[in-house]
Amino acid sequence: MASLPIMKSLLLLGLVASFAGAYEPSPMQDFCVAVPDAQTAVFVNGKVCKNPKLVMADDFYMAAGFNTPAGGINLSSVGLITKLLDVNQFPGLNTMGLSIGRIDFAPNGLIPLHTHPRGSEVVFVLEGTVYVGFITSNPLNGEKNKLFAKILNPGDSFIFPMGLVHFLYNVGRTNALLFAAFNSQNPGFVSLANSAFGSAPPISEDVLTKAFRLDKTVINYLQSQDWPLI
Amino acid sequence: MASLPIMKSLLLLGLVASFAGAYEPSPMQDFCVAVPDAQTAVFVNGKVCKNPKLVMADDFYMAAGFNTPAGGINLSSVGLITKLLDVNQFPGLNTMGLSIGRIDFAPNGLIPLHTHPRGSEVVFVLEGTVYVGFITSNPLNGEKNKLFAKILNPGDSFIFPMGLVHFLYNVGRTNALLFAAFNSQNPGFVSLANSAFGSAPPISEDVLTKAFRLDKTVINYLQSQDWPLI
Amino acid sequence: MASLPIMKSLLLLGLVASFAGAYEPSPMQDFCVAVPDAQTAVFVNGKVCKNPKLVMADDFYMAAGFNTPAGGINLSSVGLITKLLDVNQFPGLNTMGLSIGRIDFAPNGLIPLHTHPRGSEVVFVLEGTVYVGFITSNPLNGEKNKLFAKILNPGDSFIFPMGLVHFLYNVGRTNALLFAAFNSQNPGFVSLANSAFGSAPPISEDVLTKAFRLDKTVINYLQSQDWPLI
Amino acid sequence: MASLPIMKSLLLLGLVASFAGAYEPSPMQDFCVAVPDAQTAVFVNGKVCKNPKLVMADDFYMAAGFNTPAGGINLSSVGLITKLLDVNQFPGLNTMGLSIGRIDFAPNGLIPLHTHPRGSEVVFVLEGTVYVGFITSNPLNGEKNKLFAKILNPGDSFIFPMGLVHFLYNVGRTNALLFAAFNSQNPGFVSLANSAFGSAPPISEDVLTKAFRLDKTVINYLQSQDWPLI
Amino acid sequence: MASLPIMKSLLLLGLVASFAGAYEPSPMQDFCVAVPDAQTAVFVNGKVCKNPKLVMADDFYMAAGFNTPAGGINLSSVGLITKLLDVNQFPGLNTMGLSIGRIDFAPNGLIPLHTHPRGSEVVFVLEGTVYVGFITSNPLNGEKNKLFAKILNPGDSFIFPMGLVHFLYNVGRTNALLFAAFNSQNPGFVSLANSAFGSAPPISEDVLTKAFRLDKTVINYLQSQDWPLI
Amino acid sequence: MASLPIMKSLLLLGLVASFAGAYEPSPMQDFCVAVPDAQTAVFVNGKVCKNPKLVMADDFYMAAGFNTPAGGINLSSVGLITKLLDVNQFPGLNTMGLSIGRIDFAPNGLIPLHTHPRGSEVVFVLEGTVYVGFITSNPLNGEKNKLFAKILNPGDSFIFPMGLVHFLYNVGRTNALLFAAFNSQNPGFVSLANSAFGSAPPISEDVLTKAFRLDKTVINYLQSQDWPLI
Repeated sequence: MASLPIMKSLLLLGLVASFAGAYEPSPMQDFCVAVPDAQTAVFVNGKVCKNPKLVMADDFYMAAGFNTPAGGINLSSVGLITKLLDVNQFPGLNTMGLSIGRIDFAPNGLIPLHTHPRGSEVVFVLEGTVYVGFITSNPLNGEKNKLFAKILNPGDSFIFPMGLVHFLYNVGRTNALLFAAFNSQNPGFVSLANSAFGSAPPISEDVLTKAFRLDKTVINYLQSQDWPLI
Repeated sequence: MASLPIMKSLLLLGLVASFAGAYEPSPMQDFCVAVPDAQTAVFVNGKVCKNPKLVMADDFYMAAGFNTPAGGINLSSVGLITKLLDVNQFPGLNTMGLSIGRIDFAPNGLIPLHTHPRGSEVVFVLEGTVYVGFITSNPLNGEKNKLFAKILNPGDSFIFPMGLVHFLYNVGRTNALLFAAFNSQNPGFVSLANSAFGSAPPISEDVLTKAFRLDKTVINYLQSQDWPLI
Repeated sequence: MASLPIMKSLLLLGLVASFAGAYEPSPMQDFCVAVPDAQTAVFVNGKVCKNPKLVMADDFYMAAGFNTPAGGINLSSVGLITKLLDVNQFPGLNTMGLSIGRIDFAPNGLIPLHTHPRGSEVVFVLEGTVYVGFITSNPLNGEKNKLFAKILNPGDSFIFPMGLVHFLYNVGRTNALLFAAFNSQNPGFVSLANSAFGSAPPISEDVLTKAFRLDKTVINYLQSQDWPLI
Repeated sequence: MASLPIMKSLLLLGLVASFAGAYEPSPMQDFCVAVPDAQTAVFVNGKVCKNPKLVMADDFYMAAGFNTPAGGINLSSVGLITKLLDVNQFPGLNTMGLSIGRIDFAPNGLIPLHTHPRGSEVVFVLEGTVYVGFITSNPLNGEKNKLFAKILNPGDSFIFPMGLVHFLYNVGRTNALLFAAFNSQNPGFVSLANSAFGSAPPISEDVLTKAFRLDKTVINYLQSQDWPLI
Repeated sequence: MASLPIMKSLLLLGLVASFAGAYEPSPMQDFCVAVPDAQTAVFVNGKVCKNPKLVMADDFYMAAGFNTPAGGINLSSVGLITKLLDVNQFPGLNTMGLSIGRIDFAPNGLIPLHTHPRGSEVVFVLEGTVYVGFITSNPLNGEKNKLFAKILNPGDSFIFPMGLVHFLYNVGRTNALLFAAFNSQNPGFVSLANSAFGSAPPISEDVLTKAFRLDKTVINYLQSQDWPLI
Repeated sequence: MASLPIMKSLLLLGLVASFAGAYEPSPMQDFCVAVPDAQTAVFVNGKVCKNPKLVMADDFYMAAGFNTPAGGINLSSVGLITKLLDVNQFPGLNTMGLSIGRIDFAPNGLIPLHTHPRGSEVVFVLEGTVYVGFITSNPLNGEKNKLFAKILNPGDSFIFPMGLVHFLYNVGRTNALLFAAFNSQNPGFVSLANSAFGSAPPISEDVLTKAFRLDKTVINYLQSQDWPLI
């Protein structure tokens, strides 16, 4: 895999895919290395497998570059650099129910509020100080959604349960480095802001003003923003 | 179950979709009727079962009131009335992997942007004209998230895939009536606005201003709102 | 989908139950809209997916006609009209683990004894008075199979557990209207009478006379009947 | 386990099918030996586990008597003798997703039409000549349900798919011996005749006469029969 | 299926265990008979299905020869004869989550230490005296791995939990006959000795000497052995 | 969690692989934080949950020390230091289907041949040069088991499929650092050598000599070794 395409600084490149998720079927043979989508005429739930007789050690291997942030990018200018290994990057993960990611944060780097529609995520911090949290789904008893949040220091780990909104924010003065694992080969990444304000075509203004209780002016401003894939 | 507690008028945004859900384990016996949480000292994934020898026909039955909106409430004043049957209301659904809901919309009634962390949802409309849509998860190729939206008329059906952001909005001049089914006994409901702006304790202002690219003033306004459970 | 082809009057016993179902694999991507069987040369567990780049909002939508009984049919003459939305009718349900149905009963309309081999089913009544029940699997202790039955009135809901024999019968003097949801995209419908007496080729007379303790004359009469798909 | 209680000859319809099973959760530890229901105050989906520190080799072992028909019973007088090892007999099967059975048929011995609500079943014949078959679920295209049937000789194997109606009948002149395996620890056994005519309380006469197109006299006769657990 | 190709005498350690298996996806239709790998250009998790319209009773049937040891082989000279029915031999097992096997042991016949990567296994003995056992996974508390072992006599049954190392050994003076069932259509067979010493290419000498604390001479001897598929 | 108890030098072979995992049930609520085994009188598949009302942010957090090798241990003297976060150490992982580990190798440090009975594993290297490989399950066609092996450098990633034998070996001149993720909350660790030679009670000498084709002297030597949990 190469690192994900890197966008412009403020755009926040984000762990996106690396947050991934779970709920894959179990393998029904030793392995089922994915054929790249572009090379197959048949689509199935998950991915079509490479002919098992042609599978080689390299199919289970990825030069992921997980030992460094993406090369040639100035982390302090972009705020966040993410690398992801899900089945779309690493075909050997097909049917394995796993994906992983590396995230480098500059100070104030943020992976904004998002969910993984198909997986839980566990993270651990190697460097820096990262404020993380998730919010429970709506309770039925009239209570508020609960925020479970924590400041993580080097060595610490945290779990984000399946499908719940969460965020990660570098609150330290130095860069931060974090790794993530997901129990899905293709967990997906649903950014709240991108889903609400960055879709094509856009969601109707009426729905958004009412949903977020904001003026049309503010909604129009939000819709005019560029909401890159983190 | 009785209908859900009804909140004040404009706030009533409908848990309905929130009923949905999926990914439950299969039953390992004919049934496993849930014991109410308050009566058990043991918590498990899903629910503890009632002694099977004491199970009666009434355990599989619920006077759900699904033939009318909730009694004694003025729909036009609240905008939205929802009734939900998930395992928390209907103990017989435990291990069955199913839940259902009824939604009544006044004109302009909205179920705002939300996801179900544990289920897909299918809806059908009996009365009125409802604009519905969902947004795909973030693509990896730099494209925008896609909105798939449609105006539904009486008799029409639509599917919201597992974990993706979606909404339902009464765009007609009359009340609308819709039913929903979810492939989970406890799909959960994650409102984007409630998760972001209505949690207890609140998410830090810094995270929110950066995530949504809004001033602190706007964020503070949003955090001061009452974001009820629909 | 159009309503199902409607058969002749007395035969019309309702596909309804056939909607149900469950135990599908989880989605491993945002969606996997089914390609119609007739257009694919490859068959897999579940359905082959449409090229995701060609998927449109209409793939998640179905003009199901769920607001009325099937048009042009006289319910009182047929006894029962059913409409089903499973993955065979509604390709967007593929990998979603859900299906739904509408059932209209004339007085004395019956959905006879049947099971869903791949799903649990929950129903709710909007109009009329419906007697429903299910029978437990054979107990090991020499007791009899238990019947759990209930008369449902408008607004009531009931659950039929996975794989157990159940029935629904309009015991009121007016038409009845009921909706059903199943936790499978393809639950299947196994009618006891059709399986026993209506298969092609027929089950041997010897097996049937012995299984049901009936004379050959009666068995021959039963085998000569037309047992339509409800 | 001891052999199952043996009933009187013609009644003996065979627990055999009851061995089957499917759709269990995977083990989440090396083992989870079931605590007998009578010794636990808590019921869960599946079974509560014995304290793992107290588990012994005997927990994975069962003196099943699978090398002989049940002792002290005259097979020719009862027609059928079945022995089952599911989780209710063999606590070590809990979370293992497996059960097995032995069936001895006298000539004309029959395991009548039944389904397993929670499993597929594979059988193989060691002695005798057994006619077996299953019937597909109701097709949507107006065709009849298909019967797939075959005469099995010693050494032959056959598969009965999950939830479909099937039967086994000794068509030879000698005793027959067959073993069965199911992909569930508790597949359940749903006899068509027992469910329809042998439940307590009985299904209403009206439902049965209409479902099976038989006179009340015949229905009453059938309901008056003793329908034992095979 | 024919019996498996039989190797030379002492080597013949039995595919038996390799029959087992589990954790397949559930069927999403009545059946999905596998197309032989050689006839398909598409590979999926599990197997591609035969066109359902072309499926016949013979697709669910296998002349397995399970009533006798493999013909023309002298059991006492080979020590062990195994026959396996998994989805690779019996296409009707696809999506059914089941496989079965027959094992014939001469005195001192051994199925050596192995695991099934995708299934639990239950066995029962019809003839002879077989010593069986499994070893728990590594405990975290510094205790040793536990051996649960038992001598089985005719009629006895035993369960080997998913993925744990186990063995079966004829400790009697006569031949032994045993049947096995697995909750997978393709459980796989991982022989400890074959994996360690018989792979192509071989594992590096350094790894093996260190892992097993044996001299290079011994390791070289082991690597020079022929380790057939049992 | 503290780091795992550290054993004496040469023995320290690394629990690492034991982190892995897979095939857990999905969460049926937002979370189900495990109650420590010692505090519960009820055992279930997986773990009993803490009362959800008492759950705090700290339940999703673990001071794992993943930024350094275990303190106070001389890596060069022990060869290998491993830290594991599975549900036994980190109760918040219950129902989440994930676990992670850190492994520090001195030169020639080895994680010897092992499997994870309940999970696939993905690893990535941050420092050093690690030779890794896995061996396929026994082929049915008479071919040898295949070894897929690769030398990993900093930044590289590799996948070990569910249940297959694998190993990791520091072939560089410097220490190596690697992280691992598993798609199970409790994958288990089955060491080939420990299972074969280190169980309590021991496997019979006859079985081992025959299985590994070694004489009793060598087997006795192997059984006399101390085979610690890595």
